[in-house]
Amino acid sequence: MSNTTGWLIFGLACGIVSLAVGLWLFFWVKKQDDGTDRSREVAGWIHAGAREYLKKLYTALVIVAVIMAVILAVVYTIDGSGRGIQTAICYLIGSVCSALAGYLGMEVAVQANVRSAVASGISLPKAFNIAFRGGAVMGFAVVGVATIGMCSVYLLTNNPQFVLAFSLGASSLALLAKAGGGIYTKTADIAADLVGKVEVGIPEDDPRNPAVVADNVGDNVGDVAGMGADIFDSYVASAVAAMLLGASMGKVHYIVLPLLLCALGIIASLIGVYLVKVGEGGKPGKSLNMGTFITCGAFAVFMAIVIFLIPEIDNRLIWAILVGTSVGVIIGQTTEFFTSDEFSPVKKTAEYSGSGAAITIISGFSYGLISIVPSIVGIVIAMVISFFVCGGQSNFDLSIYAVGISAVGMLSVSGMIVSADAYGPIVDNARGIAEMSGMDQEVIDRADVLDSAGNTAKAITKGFAVAAAALTVLALFAAFVSEVNMAVKPLGGSFSAADISILDPLILAGIFLGAMCPPLFSALTMLSVTKNAFKMIEEIRSQFRAEPGILKGTVLPNYNRCIALASSGALKSLILPAAIAIIMPLLVGGLLGPKGLTGFLAGAIITGVIFALFMSNAGGLWDNSKKYVETGMFGGKGSEAHKAAVIGDTVGDPFKDTAGPSLNTLITVMSLVASTFAPVIAKLHLF
Amino acid sequence: MSNTTGWLIFGLACGIVSLAVGLWLFFWVKKQDDGTDRSREVAGWIHAGAREYLKKLYTALVIVAVIMAVILAVVYTIDGSGRGIQTAICYLIGSVCSALAGYLGMEVAVQANVRSAVASGISLPKAFNIAFRGGAVMGFAVVGVATIGMCSVYLLTNNPQFVLAFSLGASSLALLAKAGGGIYTKTADIAADLVGKVEVGIPEDDPRNPAVVADNVGDNVGDVAGMGADIFDSYVASAVAAMLLGASMGKVHYIVLPLLLCALGIIASLIGVYLVKVGEGGKPGKSLNMGTFITCGAFAVFMAIVIFLIPEIDNRLIWAILVGTSVGVIIGQTTEFFTSDEFSPVKKTAEYSGSGAAITIISGFSYGLISIVPSIVGIVIAMVISFFVCGGQSNFDLSIYAVGISAVGMLSVSGMIVSADAYGPIVDNARGIAEMSGMDQEVIDRADVLDSAGNTAKAITKGFAVAAAALTVLALFAAFVSEVNMAVKPLGGSFSAADISILDPLILAGIFLGAMCPPLFSALTMLSVTKNAFKMIEEIRSQFRAEPGILKGTVLPNYNRCIALASSGALKSLILPAAIAIIMPLLVGGLLGPKGLTGFLAGAIITGVIFALFMSNAGGLWDNSKKYVETGMFGGKGSEAHKAAVIGDTVGDPFKDTAGPSLNTLITVMSLVASTFAPVIAKLHLF
Repeated sequence: MSNTTGWLIFGLACGIVSLAVGLWLFFWVKKQDDGTDRSREVAGWIHAGAREYLKKLYTALVIVAVIMAVILAVVYTIDGSGRGIQTAICYLIGSVCSALAGYLGMEVAVQANVRSAVASGISLPKAFNIAFRGGAVMGFAVVGVATIGMCSVYLLTNNPQFVLAFSLGASSLALLAKAGGGIYTKTADIAADLVGKVEVGIPEDDPRNPAVVADNVGDNVGDVAGMGADIFDSYVASAVAAMLLGASMGKVHYIVLPLLLCALGIIASLIGVYLVKVGEGGKPGKSLNMGTFITCGAFAVFMAIVIFLIPEIDNRLIWAILVGTSVGVIIGQTTEFFTSDEFSPVKKTAEYSGSGAAITIISGFSYGLISIVPSIVGIVIAMVISFFVCGGQSNFDLSIYAVGISAVGMLSVSGMIVSADAYGPIVDNARGIAEMSGMDQEVIDRADVLDSAGNTAKAITKGFAVAAAALTVLALFAAFVSEVNMAVKPLGGSFSAADISILDPLILAGIFLGAMCPPLFSALTMLSVTKNAFKMIEEIRSQFRAEPGILKGTVLPNYNRCIALASSGALKSLILPAAIAIIMPLLVGGLLGPKGLTGFLAGAIITGVIFALFMSNAGGLWDNSKKYVETGMFGGKGSEAHKAAVIGDTVGDPFKDTAGPSLNTLITVMSLVASTFAPVIAKLHLF
Repeated sequence: MSNTTGWLIFGLACGIVSLAVGLWLFFWVKKQDDGTDRSREVAGWIHAGAREYLKKLYTALVIVAVIMAVILAVVYTIDGSGRGIQTAICYLIGSVCSALAGYLGMEVAVQANVRSAVASGISLPKAFNIAFRGGAVMGFAVVGVATIGMCSVYLLTNNPQFVLAFSLGASSLALLAKAGGGIYTKTADIAADLVGKVEVGIPEDDPRNPAVVADNVGDNVGDVAGMGADIFDSYVASAVAAMLLGASMGKVHYIVLPLLLCALGIIASLIGVYLVKVGEGGKPGKSLNMGTFITCGAFAVFMAIVIFLIPEIDNRLIWAILVGTSVGVIIGQTTEFFTSDEFSPVKKTAEYSGSGAAITIISGFSYGLISIVPSIVGIVIAMVISFFVCGGQSNFDLSIYAVGISAVGMLSVSGMIVSADAYGPIVDNARGIAEMSGMDQEVIDRADVLDSAGNTAKAITKGFAVAAAALTVLALFAAFVSEVNMAVKPLGGSFSAADISILDPLILAGIFLGAMCPPLFSALTMLSVTKNAFKMIEEIRSQFRAEPGILKGTVLPNYNRCIALASSGALKSLILPAAIAIIMPLLVGGLLGPKGLTGFLAGAIITGVIFALFMSNAGGLWDNSKKYVETGMFGGKGSEAHKAAVIGDTVGDPFKDTAGPSLNTLITVMSLVASTFAPVIAKLHLF
């Protein structure tokens, strides 16, 4: 047994421990008190709605997965490589694993929400604990399942190509889950708000609103299940990119190192999660951030020691990983500057709102664009330092590998990151359930404290996620080039760095075409939200018209009609965006060849990162500007400034929860599709 | 005398003819009736306001130009090339020429507006004629001055490097004129609308509004003077890019061909402008478009014959130019699809407005993003066909030259394009003057017909401008690479296509940094608009408070205070955006070297084109959605849908008139700065 086999078994063991901890926490949460008949009933509606959507979603996904698997099987049988069936199987395993992690996370979230609401009646620490442990189920399920999957596939096949297929399976599922969930949640949210709050003037989460259950379901299917699949996807993609780069160097230790880092990250996350506690009157946001810092610190120490002790691995990689992780944390902090009401962008936008909604929009839009600057500079610094610390051009392969492994380093702490992130929608839901089932004001206030902590934690985790995704796709980009190179070498061709000049019009054409895809994808998902919200608004209005008892509170509205509208609308809307992700790379590759496709990926990565940052931050900024006005600034609730700020917040909803967060996954899927089909495209193309 | 000297003299002659025609039209317009004392008074306010702003602007520009000239003189004296003084002089000549063209255009615009308004009282053909000839003054001044300048500089120096300095002078001035004018015009427009129309409910262009004169001044300094400088800049930059590429091929005929094409374009434009006529009850928009088509057709014929007859020029370039020009026209047509109320994007956005402003914004934003697709595809097709029609990789230099010359071909018809475009703000102003000086409803109605034709013409000219700018900067990009290559060759280095791999982290870092600049620039200019508008809103409100007679119409408001606010605000706001354009390329070049700067330009070009298209089109779409609702659709004026559509229109204002159109110039300036300083950066850099 070589020592890399030992690493793989160690990785597998850590993955199993992670999953076991996740399951243990799941049952712990389930054991907690779920309160009165009323709260159980409300939670039951949300649970049932979420399950119904997931059932429909997964049915659709099975069809997509089977089609893709058949294509892969056929392509890799025809091309003579004889690995068609295995590739298809690995692809399917990836899809199933990703779905499983998302399902588990959602299942616990819809149980933790009501239990956290009930516990808010007792104490803050208790309520926090339930919500955070609920989030941790998701966190450990994601990294556990992913690590088990990757280690097993590599142990069985000894070929990173199959891990690539596994990754593509996970990512294509993640894209649909994320975009679908994003469309679902914002359709319901916008419709509920526009009719409920604006037209008839009932509060948020009021049970008289026919869309209120759909709105709460949306938080779970969008923010929990979607986000889980999203991080699953980045986590696996970053590992596979580094593995492929390691394979092109021909060094097995470098192939397996990413999986070893995942294992170390799991241990660090266990420590971090264990240490997150909050006292009565304590600050939950601070505790969550502290957990993230501890996890990163522990991971850095383990990583440095382990790499130092392995003679086959170049020690300079330690610096690359450290730089990557630090930059991730720093980016998170700058994100906070643009989205927190303690700093001038949010304050100024709130102030300008007094001059009308147009000014609110222009300001938030502009600050959102400015907010990309620190993150882009951070990503550039991480990339350049990772590259040059390992020798740069004079040691090109290792230096590019360093860029890839720094992304793996950042993402290996995902266990903790996801735990903190999934906590958010759980407490958001807890607040909704407390309101809908008529709990005391004190309970609602405590739920509010927990809720606002979720937003603070999100800023840091988002910065992390985008920075990691950017470095991951850069590594995937390099992996794609080496895949093509390996494919054309036997044909006597070459596709090394020198062959892909940025001055080549095919590359430039590809860049332009790639660069237009993320904006196009964003536009299509957002238009789906407006279209579906428009339909749901009609539905809510017609329920109010047909049955006046609903608004009086004597008759229950028909929640299911809104849930059904949101579900079917979201699923239908997925077709076009999904086609962009999968068909566009193949089309460009088929027409403009590997060069065009290389440019295409570069273009998509650039605008993908820019739009992801811009949309997430602008959305967060508008959200918090509205909240800032609601604290009584510039006229407070009901003022002109407030009306304008509400419009800003509504515009920001699909920015930050539908389009923005899906873009990471979009560029990952495009890169994976390109790498997977590289051998075929290298042989078959028009130009 | 070689035959290329003959071409240059021919070019010079055409330039002089163009300028002479412009001046003749200028005096013709001046001779027309300027109406009553009242209309003269109103026009006088606008004229004085515009002059005051231009005086301030040009004072500021003199400072910038002198600083830049000194830097150029010093740098090119120190580097031993001994061409410091000449470079500085050519730079200054370029600035002066660009300023002159802008000044002439504006001077005629503020005289044509009132005369066109007065003529609207007589007949449509008469009013149209004055406005269009006013626009043509600008058109012929721009191409005349530019062609005279370029031909003279090249005749005197025989070195395209000096034409490059001339171009940089023109472009840096254009950027400031365009961005400054854009900030000025939208500050006044938004403030006038928000207080006037929304708060106190007086109509557009009402003389009781203290900001109304500033608003009309803005149309002239933003749309006329700024736009003139903008096209001047693209026109010269496209020629110089092709000249530099010709120089790197070492063939004098290819160096001079762009100037010959400019001359042919002038003749074609003279024919086109001469043929533009409209009868009473005719459609002015149709006539304008017809003029553009005739000009393009005439140019195509001349160009094909001339190139065919010159044995030293490869005939395949004919195809490249034809493809470029056709794609320009097609892009214009698709732009219309997204911004005209005859098609679904505008209609749907108007319909969705019934559900509130947030939905209006999300829809318009999304359609704006989708609208980039046909243009990008068109640019890619033009580039790829131009490149491959001349042999592609196997004949790389000529093929890249073909891309550059296709942009020259498109822009050589600028005489006609600018005439049609400058017509727009003149009739917009004419309408304003008719309203402010209390002319009959019949006159205002006729002015309305003329005004809406301006918008139709704009769609096509905008498509043209963006497509041409994209191809121009691509050619400049190639020119930059060959500049660096020439600079490092004597040092034993190489900077050919093979050395600038898109996989190189320095290139990738540059791409990221470049790509963030256009969004950042847009954000800064738009924030200036909100900041300045916010101040002006306070000013208007305080005037209304202090003197109730203003609203009653018994006391004239203080127009000058608003004019002064808009002027000084716009000029102060220029500092940061200008710094981005000039300092960022030098900074990136100094830090990351020529490779970083190569990536930087590529990144800036991509997002520059995308944001320019997106912002212009989204703005146009919101504008026309509002107008569509105002025709009585979805509740018409005063309905909820109308209120929402007005908010969309206001958001779109700085999109389409401040940020969007400045981006072309931004990327041109960045490319020119990079090329001009390439020899220095090639020697001095950190990485």
